[in-house]
This record gives sequence, C-alpha cells and structure tokens, in this order.
Amino acid sequence: MKPSIPKGTRDFSPTEVANRTYIMNTIKTAFETFGFQPIETPSFENSSTLMGKYGEEGDRLIFKILNSGDFLKKADEKLLAEKNSLKVTSQISEKALRYDLTVPFARYVVQHQNDITFPFKRYQVQPVWRADRPQKGRFREFFQCDADVVGSKSLVQEVEFIQLYDTVFTNLGLAGTTIKMNNRKILSGIAEVIGASDKLIDFTVALDKLDKIGKDGVVTEMLSKGITSEAIEKVQPLFDFSGSNLDKLASLENMLSTSEEGLQGVNDLRFVINTIEVLGLQTAGLEIDVTLARGLNYYTGAIFEVAAPEGVKMGSIGGGGRYDDLTGIFGLKDVSGVGISFGLDRIYLVLEELGLFKSVDLPKPKVLFLNFNEAEILLKMKAIKTLRDNSIKSELYPDVAGSNKQQKKQFKYATTREIEFVVTEIENDKFVVKNNGEQFLLSVEELIEKTK
Amino acid sequence: MKPSIPKGTRDFSPTEVANRTYIMNTIKTAFETFGFQPIETPSFENSSTLMGKYGEEGDRLIFKILNSGDFLKKADEKLLAEKNSLKVTSQISEKALRYDLTVPFARYVVQHQNDITFPFKRYQVQPVWRADRPQKGRFREFFQCDADVVGSKSLVQEVEFIQLYDTVFTNLGLAGTTIKMNNRKILSGIAEVIGASDKLIDFTVALDKLDKIGKDGVVTEMLSKGITSEAIEKVQPLFDFSGSNLDKLASLENMLSTSEEGLQGVNDLRFVINTIEVLGLQTAGLEIDVTLARGLNYYTGAIFEVAAPEGVKMGSIGGGGRYDDLTGIFGLKDVSGVGISFGLDRIYLVLEELGLFKSVDLPKPKVLFLNFNEAEILLKMKAIKTLRDNSIKSELYPDVAGSNKQQKKQFKYATTREIEFVVTEIENDKFVVKNNGEQFLLSVEELIEKTK
Repeated sequence: MKPSIPKGTRDFSPTEVANRTYIMNTIKTAFETFGFQPIETPSFENSSTLMGKYGEEGDRLIFKILNSGDFLKKADEKLLAEKNSLKVTSQISEKALRYDLTVPFARYVVQHQNDITFPFKRYQVQPVWRADRPQKGRFREFFQCDADVVGSKSLVQEVEFIQLYDTVFTNLGLAGTTIKMNNRKILSGIAEVIGASDKLIDFTVALDKLDKIGKDGVVTEMLSKGITSEAIEKVQPLFDFSGSNLDKLASLENMLSTSEEGLQGVNDLRFVINTIEVLGLQTAGLEIDVTLARGLNYYTGAIFEVAAPEGVKMGSIGGGGRYDDLTGIFGLKDVSGVGISFGLDRIYLVLEELGLFKSVDLPKPKVLFLNFNEAEILLKMKAIKTLRDNSIKSELYPDVAGSNKQQKKQFKYATTREIEFVVTEIENDKFVVKNNGEQFLLSVEELIEKTK
Repeated sequence: MKPSIPKGTRDFSPTEVANRTYIMNTIKTAFETFGFQPIETPSFENSSTLMGKYGEEGDRLIFKILNSGDFLKKADEKLLAEKNSLKVTSQISEKALRYDLTVPFARYVVQHQNDITFPFKRYQVQPVWRADRPQKGRFREFFQCDADVVGSKSLVQEVEFIQLYDTVFTNLGLAGTTIKMNNRKILSGIAEVIGASDKLIDFTVALDKLDKIGKDGVVTEMLSKGITSEAIEKVQPLFDFSGSNLDKLASLENMLSTSEEGLQGVNDLRFVINTIEVLGLQTAGLEIDVTLARGLNYYTGAIFEVAAPEGVKMGSIGGGGRYDDLTGIFGLKDVSGVGISFGLDRIYLVLEELGLFKSVDLPKPKVLFLNFNEAEILLKMKAIKTLRDNSIKSELYPDVAGSNKQQKKQFKYATTREIEFVVTEIENDKFVVKNNGEQFLLSVEELIEKTK
C-alpha cells in the first residue's frame, strides 16, 4: 500500500515551496521595511496557555499532544471507565499545538515584558494547526503571516497597516485589491441607535446580504430577528450606503449623532481615510464597509479585511483589527494591540489563478553537465566548482552513461527539468554547450559570461 | 503567575530570529547552488509512517497527537482499566509529530515517485520534535537542515557533499572545521578480519577512546568485551592510525587485504579523497576516521561527521551518510540515498562563541522619526513613504509626545534599539537628523543619499 499523509495536510513540491517562499519573502521584506521585527514561538504551548482563548468551538479544534511515557498513570479510573473524553483530556495531555499566532504573541509579550521596548512592532510567519473539517483553501496545517503593534493607541498604526497591505499586494503584482475598513465603535454606535446591542450581529449579518436579497429582503430578515421597524427606520441611510468614503463618513456622522462612541468611531475612521487620501495608495482601494464585523467580540477599534481583485472568486485574503486589551488574558493590563494577517494559502490560489508566479526563480540548476565519459568527470567537476563560486547553480549528472539508452535518459532529465544550459562533452579543452536549440564551444569563463 | 512555555522549547527574539535566518539562508543558498530542490512535508504524519522506524527508544520519543473529538469511544475498556498506556496509545492517537526529516522524505519519494525525476536532489529545512530529556544544545523542538540525493549510487555525490560542507562553513566565516569520513564497508571489513561482526560496535566504541585511555586501556576494554587478542593483533595498525589520508588508505588496504568488502570500502574512500585533493577545499579539512560509526545499522556506505574548529567545545555540527535502501521501508526497493544534515542549534552556539554574527543585518529600522508635534505627522509620514519606496527601513514613533518626559521616552526608544538615523523635527521643510553624535538638516532626497 502506498503511504499517505493525514487529511488536511500537504506535501509541497519544489515548485510549490519556491512559490510559497516568494510570497512569504515579499511579505517579510515589507514587514521589515515598515519597522516590524520577527519573533518565533514554539509549535506547542502549555494547554493552559491556549485553552479557553478561542471559545468552546476553538477548544475543540485545538490539537492536543499526548503526554509522554505512562500517561494513563495519572488519569482518573472512574473517568476512564466512563470514557469521559472531555475530562480525561486534561489528565493525559498538557501540551497543544498552536492554534493561531495572536495568543502565543500575547503570551510572549507578557513573559518577556522586561526585555521588550514598547511600542513593540513584531511580525511572525509560522504554521498553525486546527482540527477543522478540510475543504478548498482550508487546511489542518497552514501558515499565518501576522504583523502587530502593542503598546500604542495611535491611529498612525491603522494608516500604516493599510499602506502595508497596499505595498505587499502591489509587490506581488496583485493590483485591484480592496481594503475594507470598519470600526467597532461605529457598530456599537449603531447598536445604541437601534436600541439593541444584543441584536447587532443579526443586524450586520442581515445588512451584509443587501446585494443579494435587496432592501426588502434585508428588512424582512431584520424584523424576523426581532429588530423593531422604528430601529430600522433610524438607520435608513445604511440601506443606501454608497458614494465616496467621505460621503459615507458624513452619512454616518449624521446617523450616529446621538451616540458618543459612534461619533468617536467616525472620527477615528476619518483620520485614517484622510491621511491615506494624502499619502496615496499604489494599487489597492480603501473602502468603508459597515457590515464588516469579523471577530466582533475581539476587536475594540479598527476592523480590516482585504478582498481579492474583482472577478477572482475567493474569500478574504487578509484581515485584522485593534484589540484594546490584548495581553490582559495573561495578566498584563491596558496594553493596546493592533494587527493584520495575510492569508498565505488564499493568496497562493489567487496568484496561481492570475498567472502571477511567472517571475519566481524556480529551484533548478542553470547549467547541467551530462556525464557520458568517466575521463571527463574531474574536468567537469572543476568547471562546476568555478561556476558555483560565481553563484551559478549547476550540477553534474552523477552516474556515467554506459549506453545510448542511458545517454538518452540524461538528455530527458535535462528536458524534464527545463535546464537552460546543457554541457555534453569536452572538445579541445572547451565545453560543448547546448542552449536554446543552439550549440556553442565555450571555456568556463565564456560559459559564466553567457549564463549571466 | 507569569505564563511559560513547555520545557525543551524556546521563544526566539528578533535578534535570534535574524541570526538563525542568516544561518538557514546561507545553507539554503548553498543547497540550491549545488542543484538541490526544496520540499516540505507536514508537521505530523500518520503514526504508521513513523512508528517502528527509529527503534524502540525512538518510538518512545515520538510526540503523539490525541485524536479529536470523543477519542476514548474506540478505546478498549479492558486496556483502559489496566491503564496499559502503551497499547492504548494506538487506539486514541493516529498522528504523530515528525521525528526527523529522513523518514518523511522516504515517504514523500514513494508517494510521489511518478512525479519525481530521478536522481532527485532534495533539501528540506523544517523543525522536528523529540520527547528527549532537554539539556545544553538539545531541545524538544529543533530545526534540521538536510540535503539528500536518491536514485544514484555515484560517488560523485559523496565528493559534492564534502564540497557542500566546506562551502557552507566557509560562507558562515567558520574556518577550521574537520570533515571526518568513514565507510561502512571498511567497518564490515574490520569485523571480517577480527572474525566477529557482532562485536563491531564494542570494537569501534573502544577504539574511539584511544586519545583518552591510551592503547593499553583500549586493549583491556576490547578484551573485556570478548574480542580475542588474536583479533586485536590483526588490526594493530588502527592503534597507530595517523599520517595523511593517503597513508591511512595504504594502511587500511594492507590490513583489509583478505576482505573483499573492506577493500571496496578503501577504493570508495580513495576516489573521494583523490577527487577532493584535486578540487581543493576552502577552509575545511578532510580526515579519514575509522572510529566513526554513527547510525551503524542505517548507513551502508559513506559515513560523515563534521567537527567544530579546534578549541570550540561542541559535539558534531553535521553528519550524514549513504543508505542503500532508503525507501524500502515504504515498499520502493533498490533506491540508494546519500545525504547530510547541518545541526542548526549547535552551529548557532559555535558562531555565537566565536563572535561570527557581526555581519548579520539586525531587524531594525535605519531611520526613526520621533513624534513631538501633531502638525508634523503628515509630512513625516510622507517622507517615510518615500524612504520605504527606496527600500530603506524606517518608522514613525506612533504616539505624539505631550510632555518632556514623553520626548525623553522616544529618545530612549531610539537609543535602546540602536537606530542609526533619528529625525527629531522639521525646520524650513527640511528634517533635523541626528546621526552618530552629529546633527544634519536634510531634505528627503539628501536623507536617502546619506543612509545609503
């Protein structure tokens, strides 16, 4: 039987690794240009660090690691006899695989607070694991690429994150992304105005369907969720929420005039919008979207989400926001954090669909020396050494061809791997080089010159 | 209580990440220059892929992942009641964390054999996990950096791996490493000559102590292990095994003249030694070491190990060898493999001890704009945008200083992070820049020029 890998996991071929590295390096370079510093945390954390941080569903999806050795020794006989999986878990497992990068980052900040200079701008590009049901674009092992700032409440950060998204997607050649932005304070203001903070999620979920089911459909859904028609009346402008960002801000300001928090949200948004207006973006658009509510219980200020260019069917390819008490869960109060994440796997699928990996330097040798003659091996290895000293990727086909068939195999190897320069033999101290259907007789120095 | 991480794991600070990345990139660049291609495999594999591949001790040290959901449902009541941890494991855990990169690579080759062009030169730089007792330089999560070739028996590969070690350590500035080399066939030859293949490990372990306990001590130990004095007499030359590699080869050839396999090993070694003699090494030494027997049950040909430069107390910083039936465990017979590994953590400690991280570009901005005046924010952000567009790492201190104390905090931030160029304020449309104790008044263009 052929071996296999666990569902939801993947092997990456050389080409896939090269493409993924290209995306990650583009992101990392932008992170560093913007002043972010890399950290890394362990793949597994103490269970106590992770459990209870992602809700009940999250707890269920965390991969637990079995204690080493005689793990059943400490387990309760009664619970084992009852087969109480839930309660036995904590008795036989003390470690768990990282579920995201945010909670480990909060743990890192609290643990190393005395060594950190605040504000601390960190980035982290590492895999995370979730026991989710696998589907297209969703895996049990996947990379997150996060940048966060802790220890500053300045809205300058929000502006910079928008610039960062624009920089990365522009550098990836992915023009036409839309950065959607909202603010939790605006959502709170809406809740205040409609007089029902507990209905806010129902409200935004319904409003988000405006494109699909039209105004009447949305109103019907809101009424069915118990939102009163008076409340709906008060936020009428949201049903015709178009125009420029400045139009939207004016409309929101008017609508939220009775909510102090709502107006604060409008002001926050206005600062960001105005500043970006002056600084300009390269290829991304910036759009206020009041239906944006991702991680509503989590974010306390700005909320971001990035949509792929129009015409590409793909969910969000990035998201983030501000959370005013990031490290509170580990006992360090009043440290504000704001951050964004890039969805590596989805970005990969988008770039693939649009044919944007063309410029990626695939991991293959530029020059291949075929190996038809034992007596030439040493001279060829000498030449290869010189090429490599000049940073030219090159290799010798390892086995000497003892027959025509084996020679053909070597040519086929060169063709399959699409090697640009193929050296066949040595004539008068020069190398016979096949390149692009032509043949040349070159010294090592001439070959170096030609490959550059 | 301050949060913590599981024992044997580590957080990496920005400086540590930068230094580690520097080592890994140096290794990866060399791998690619030599024609190796990257692959990546999942962090966890099906338990059946890993278990039974590393011996009983290895099985014990593999981290197992608890099945998701109601994992006890399928477990045997009787075994649970007996608290039979060993047998229950396979009933409640179907996945396990990668223990090394070699077995997953073998699994990859077999699984994707139809998509691979052989000989396949792959490299892989990924973390592995072992539930070992942590100690200095030994961790429960650590990176391996492996390069292997499968599908070729040519000794050219052995030569190339020696060149590869030399290239990497030279590029890291680590001169004076010693690449020790042996061959399993020579060890088999010795066993044949002393007439006791079952005593070979005792023999090499004893011989390895020659430096410490002298010839008499070694002989005493060998006799105590049941090796006869006649056998010891036959391999006398090994007790005075010095001189050049060519001297050693001559001595081995003489000593192993009655063993066909032993002589084959001598010939293999001679080809490698002679070829390296012609091609030359930059900073590493190559030395035949007949006591080298790492993974004796595993390797079938060449055996490598790299020692740090003299004076640095550190075990081996790399190792590898040839194994004639790498993929046989997964049903693909007769595929020869040869590979080497770099010990990232130990290399890190050696470079640190020798002060060889000096050239590493630390992840910090080149230019920091202090933030003393709300009215200047927009102009400073514009300047930062221009700097970043020119790939100059730069950032704005996010919060406006409202007091002298807060201004001092910003200066302290600049000092702590050792920022080279610090912009304080704007005068006549130019920036006041502090650099190296001096002060300049510069336009953005002049600032760009100055930082280059």
